[in-house]
Amino acid sequence: MKGSGVQSSVCATKSGILPGVESMNSQDMLSDVRDHMSRHNLIEHGHSVVVGVSGGPDSVALLDLMLRLRDDLDIEIHVAHLNHKLRGEASNLDEVFVANLAESNRLPFLSKACNLDRGGKSLEEAARDARHAFLEDVLDQTGSHRIALGHTRSDQAETFLLRLFRGAGTRGLGAIKPLRDAVWIRPLLGMSRERIVAYNEFRNLSFRTDESNKDTRFLRNRIRHDLIPAIAATYNPAIEEVLARSADILQQEDELLEQMTEPALKVTVRYRGKQKIILDVDTLFRYHISLRRRILRKVLLWLQFSATDITFKTLHRVLDLLHETSGNVQISPGFCIQKVTGSLILSRETLPSESRLEAPGITRIPWLDASVEIRVRPVSEVVGDLSHLGEYRACFDLEKLSGSLVIRNPREGDRFQPFGMFGTQKISHLLINTKIPRSLRDQVPLLLSNSSILWVVGLRRAQPFSITSTTKEVLDVVFKGGCLFSTGL
Amino acid sequence: MKGSGVQSSVCATKSGILPGVESMNSQDMLSDVRDHMSRHNLIEHGHSVVVGVSGGPDSVALLDLMLRLRDDLDIEIHVAHLNHKLRGEASNLDEVFVANLAESNRLPFLSKACNLDRGGKSLEEAARDARHAFLEDVLDQTGSHRIALGHTRSDQAETFLLRLFRGAGTRGLGAIKPLRDAVWIRPLLGMSRERIVAYNEFRNLSFRTDESNKDTRFLRNRIRHDLIPAIAATYNPAIEEVLARSADILQQEDELLEQMTEPALKVTVRYRGKQKIILDVDTLFRYHISLRRRILRKVLLWLQFSATDITFKTLHRVLDLLHETSGNVQISPGFCIQKVTGSLILSRETLPSESRLEAPGITRIPWLDASVEIRVRPVSEVVGDLSHLGEYRACFDLEKLSGSLVIRNPREGDRFQPFGMFGTQKISHLLINTKIPRSLRDQVPLLLSNSSILWVVGLRRAQPFSITSTTKEVLDVVFKGGCLFSTGL
Repeated sequence: MKGSGVQSSVCATKSGILPGVESMNSQDMLSDVRDHMSRHNLIEHGHSVVVGVSGGPDSVALLDLMLRLRDDLDIEIHVAHLNHKLRGEASNLDEVFVANLAESNRLPFLSKACNLDRGGKSLEEAARDARHAFLEDVLDQTGSHRIALGHTRSDQAETFLLRLFRGAGTRGLGAIKPLRDAVWIRPLLGMSRERIVAYNEFRNLSFRTDESNKDTRFLRNRIRHDLIPAIAATYNPAIEEVLARSADILQQEDELLEQMTEPALKVTVRYRGKQKIILDVDTLFRYHISLRRRILRKVLLWLQFSATDITFKTLHRVLDLLHETSGNVQISPGFCIQKVTGSLILSRETLPSESRLEAPGITRIPWLDASVEIRVRPVSEVVGDLSHLGEYRACFDLEKLSGSLVIRNPREGDRFQPFGMFGTQKISHLLINTKIPRSLRDQVPLLLSNSSILWVVGLRRAQPFSITSTTKEVLDVVFKGGCLFSTGL
Repeated sequence: MKGSGVQSSVCATKSGILPGVESMNSQDMLSDVRDHMSRHNLIEHGHSVVVGVSGGPDSVALLDLMLRLRDDLDIEIHVAHLNHKLRGEASNLDEVFVANLAESNRLPFLSKACNLDRGGKSLEEAARDARHAFLEDVLDQTGSHRIALGHTRSDQAETFLLRLFRGAGTRGLGAIKPLRDAVWIRPLLGMSRERIVAYNEFRNLSFRTDESNKDTRFLRNRIRHDLIPAIAATYNPAIEEVLARSADILQQEDELLEQMTEPALKVTVRYRGKQKIILDVDTLFRYHISLRRRILRKVLLWLQFSATDITFKTLHRVLDLLHETSGNVQISPGFCIQKVTGSLILSRETLPSESRLEAPGITRIPWLDASVEIRVRPVSEVVGDLSHLGEYRACFDLEKLSGSLVIRNPREGDRFQPFGMFGTQKISHLLINTKIPRSLRDQVPLLLSNSSILWVVGLRRAQPFSITSTTKEVLDVVFKGGCLFSTGL
């Protein structure tokens, strides 16, 4: 399944030497795969399954086993193959081989050739991502329910070590799951590669050999060909089984811990926007450090932090911040986390943003996760309300306004004349004086007309546009949503 | 700390070459150790601490650091050394070295020489167990609160791999804990061995070198000298840090999962005796597979199953049994687990057991976790009760009895004449007919007088000893406790 470099060759395997034993093996294999599938609920009756076939021994065995189980499981099978075009003619021959395999079994065959877009990824990652995207397309096109991949217990052990060496906790060491996202299934995850080789041999199955699997420039191949045999020789001959079992246990414990994280997350989040998330610190502290770490991780993922950037160190910089009365950490150039009076504010930097408002009308302000409703009304209709408009509604004298209305966030040097004052004041001073946490200041909406600030929403209106005895018509503005106000900070 | 084989030599290290940098190192080290200790609450003010000093670089650094922190932490220090006598004269010189170190620092010194009793253990295990027993003795003798050991982050990484290769889940991979059982502390667990070497060098500390630490016949030494450097070279230079961090995360997640296991265990156990434990299957099924596994593990430990015998396979043989309507698995020669109508019965084989009863009086029956109360009374006192004695009280005609009274468990061939019947019946048939689960049959108490069975407790009395119109005095027997009856099976 891991294509790159070098060429392939077709090899027809010799048939079994000890038919009795080998036949046992083949039957055992079938029933072990069936057991594994039923234990992990990999498939339901009537399902349509896309089998990803590279043409290598694992996926060829997978296809053969799925075919043998087809009637019993009452499933439909599609064969899918992505030609990565990484090994020239060999890649094309792989495709032809799989096409023939599908045809000879009268199975629908779907393939695609791709030009790999590396985009900063390793070759292996890029190939895997392209393959996954292709298989998901096939899933959609064929209206199938599952995508089956030929990962074995040997892949599991290798993945475990790869992740361990890169740095991982329970989640990462859980490695490959038998069922992921209710779509991806690994029917062979309990089988060693050796058993699959023996199975192919007995069943007399042809497959393609990807020479790049021997290339020890790839870390996985080094683990496969050098490290695991060395550990088996020195420490434990059953190392592969032992690692796969640890992965199993950790996978299940991770599942339980994730189940516990969900409700904890729900009560800890005070506000969730695209740019900011606010957590309640006291609530967070009620949970065990392990859950705190998982809650934070999820929140960072919501804010589009990439999983690989969420390191142990990053999480612990934030967890340490929780113990301070106030403070902040910058965890990446555009990403700051601030602790303020009982709240933890995680914020992506909000870019200078501006939204033109419909007047009259209702305008959604996506960058604020808010909306603004504007009406134009005779003064008589609002005059009785003026003393109790609340913080999120304001009325202005229509005649004093000119130009279009916009909502934008504060900029360096912004000033306005607050209601009831003669001189002007810097917006930044107002925000400091009213104790708006620094990390939320870019979320304070300013209402402007022709570049004059009418309203620092939620805080102060400007003097020049206020309603007087001569006002005839008013602009009646209601602001709804936003993080600052929903959390009461 | 890991003594065995070969000889040692004293080496005074050269002093620091770059005083500025090295001085930084020494201060950093001090503050890092202090941070580590405070984060994990290793020590409280006023504590008395036993420092285990082998004379090697780690424990020498530990003692030096503890001395430098002594006033600040307000602690008292004792130096303890166990001479394993494994390396002849070198071992004795180690002891002298540590004694001098203690004396020059005016610290109380406690040592002992031991003749290692291997008893089936590996040399390393036996040495460690002897050392731990000795240090616990010192703790008691000196009335101390903590025992400090010099384990480093390097030891942690090695232990992680050792356990991984042997087979481990979250608990095992958690490896060495900074604080264990509220007594054992590892102040250096965050420090790499390299940092300690540099520290000793800068502080100009002498230490002893244990040549057996280079002996690659020991698995740990192979991991230290061969495997970790190889992984560092090929996969990740920071491998030690990465492994220690995984251990940290897993330790914390294990802690949380253990916290969850406690209450689950409490409601799942229906009966707990020394020989048998009965679990409620429906309750067990309410918990996630990860907790089920942990509950079972604890229960097996209660029944004196050794931790190393509780393998993944053993646990899963039992977990698989839960899905059967009934059945049993023998998990070791004297240990059987049976599933019966909603109960899981874990039982160590009860040896043929017999207890002589005080009559009159109360007798504890330890092997049944029960007691028997016997009174001798005139028949007039009980005659009104006879129709409603319940299952655990029985009255017999005193005149018909002879010899001493005993309670024992059933034996092959036991027969008696049930109340209301003419012929005799095999006890085994009675137990089968009354549907006593096989694994509990050895817990059915029989009351005998002069080798005649008077009563199959809880089930049937014998005809020959029953009360008639001619009875004058009765033996009034009340049985309390036992697993069979408390669980209603």
